[in-house]
Amino acid sequence: MVYYDYYHRVRYGECDPMRVVYHTRYLDFFEAARTEALRDFGMPYAELEEAGVLMPVVEASIQYRRSALYDDLLQIRAIFPEVPQIRATVDYEVRRMVDGEPADPILVTGRVVLCFLDAERHRPVRAPQVFVDAFERLQQSISES
Amino acid sequence: MVYYDYYHRVRYGECDPMRVVYHTRYLDFFEAARTEALRDFGMPYAELEEAGVLMPVVEASIQYRRSALYDDLLQIRAIFPEVPQIRATVDYEVRRMVDGEPADPILVTGRVVLCFLDAERHRPVRAPQVFVDAFERLQQSISES
Amino acid sequence: MVYYDYYHRVRYGECDPMRVVYHTRYLDFFEAARTEALRDFGMPYAELEEAGVLMPVVEASIQYRRSALYDDLLQIRAIFPEVPQIRATVDYEVRRMVDGEPADPILVTGRVVLCFLDAERHRPVRAPQVFVDAFERLQQSISES
Amino acid sequence: MVYYDYYHRVRYGECDPMRVVYHTRYLDFFEAARTEALRDFGMPYAELEEAGVLMPVVEASIQYRRSALYDDLLQIRAIFPEVPQIRATVDYEVRRMVDGEPADPILVTGRVVLCFLDAERHRPVRAPQVFVDAFERLQQSISES
Repeated sequence: MVYYDYYHRVRYGECDPMRVVYHTRYLDFFEAARTEALRDFGMPYAELEEAGVLMPVVEASIQYRRSALYDDLLQIRAIFPEVPQIRATVDYEVRRMVDGEPADPILVTGRVVLCFLDAERHRPVRAPQVFVDAFERLQQSISES
Repeated sequence: MVYYDYYHRVRYGECDPMRVVYHTRYLDFFEAARTEALRDFGMPYAELEEAGVLMPVVEASIQYRRSALYDDLLQIRAIFPEVPQIRATVDYEVRRMVDGEPADPILVTGRVVLCFLDAERHRPVRAPQVFVDAFERLQQSISES
Repeated sequence: MVYYDYYHRVRYGECDPMRVVYHTRYLDFFEAARTEALRDFGMPYAELEEAGVLMPVVEASIQYRRSALYDDLLQIRAIFPEVPQIRATVDYEVRRMVDGEPADPILVTGRVVLCFLDAERHRPVRAPQVFVDAFERLQQSISES
Repeated sequence: MVYYDYYHRVRYGECDPMRVVYHTRYLDFFEAARTEALRDFGMPYAELEEAGVLMPVVEASIQYRRSALYDDLLQIRAIFPEVPQIRATVDYEVRRMVDGEPADPILVTGRVVLCFLDAERHRPVRAPQVFVDAFERLQQSISES
């Protein structure tokens, strides 16, 4: 299991009249976490796109357990439960940072599934080999440590 | 089964570099469709809030089947499969309007589940009776027609 | 002076913890009003783009006088003070609809200036002649009426 | 002149079909830069709000000179040209980071003017004294260095 922790400070405009993060915003946080995860893993999405592969979202689900508030510092953990093949699954856990540590309970969980698309022909393709290799290396280095 | 059809013209800023509606935007379209449905059913959400009941989203899921494009006119159907009690479930179907008619296949489907919250004490409550009554009247008028 | 009135219902997610429309949202309302104005004038922006002309925003300014609230129905008037040549200037006036009529005082005013760009070479061009002609026809029909 | 540099990585959903940052997004970047500036100066906006003072935006203007692209790392400089009294003026300069340094030319400039509002009575007030003192200390420490 490979994961990456992304941190986001909640903005005023991201909160609604209930004074909590508006529910649609978590998909944006997930996207930011996923993008930084791929960069950290050595496969920036911008390079993937330049190489002619797009990764559109095919499904998403979110469970809202507790509210995040204006000015909260959030940890968004992006978890890749398996090596991407036809699709890439990413799970998310959102926690509030308290005194520099992610606090329980989890505020929000979610899952986003993406596919790989040939940018020219707009047809589904398998995950690029460089992508699969990077994930397998990451998994190995974790299981060895 | 009670439903309401909401129409939305896709805006430039709602589209991403793939020239399609950015995936997070459908949750916004769902919210607009849900709000207009409640208004049409005689229970505007603004009045519900004034009466001390909030309806936060507790879970959401979306399936992206096909892309919507800039300037598309979309039909977002908000379907209430059952009379809200502890929670309100709303299903969504998004279709492109072609020559004034919703065209198949469906572009996007989704489900949003909301609960009812006492605004003062921030505790879950049952759906207000006026809310339940309105839904039961709607269902009856449909089954009679 | 040519103008177009666009109507927008304020969404929950467009409001902030002060319970008013978040200030950045008016630029979105302006864009929607501008797009529908061009469609109404017979020059949909989507067709302009297909014809190879882009209209990026080069400057924008907004004056926030009074707040708009959740569920308000707003009238956004898009005013074209002159026939677009090198640039297109659009002024905006936002009013709350009360009993089916736009109410004074004005809530928000603004101005957006756009230029015309050759989509291929990404260089500034003059307004397409069809665009200028349409505006001149509109102005004439107004001054005659 | 007091300033603060905020950094933002451009997200996919912040870009439009022209593959550049959608023009409304800069107001969001400005807000984030302003908020972090106030935190850095020792006056977090969340504390100001808890103390009963709101800072709504009364006017904003933006000049779009050049485009920012997906995945660009941007430096947003928030400049406070004077000690806030009745109003607080903040100027902005957006530059692309290249090899760890802000590159010229400037992509976008802007100005946002805010006022101070008593949260209870919703009436304009002068900048809190603690706010004015903090700015004067910052200015002095700069002129001495």
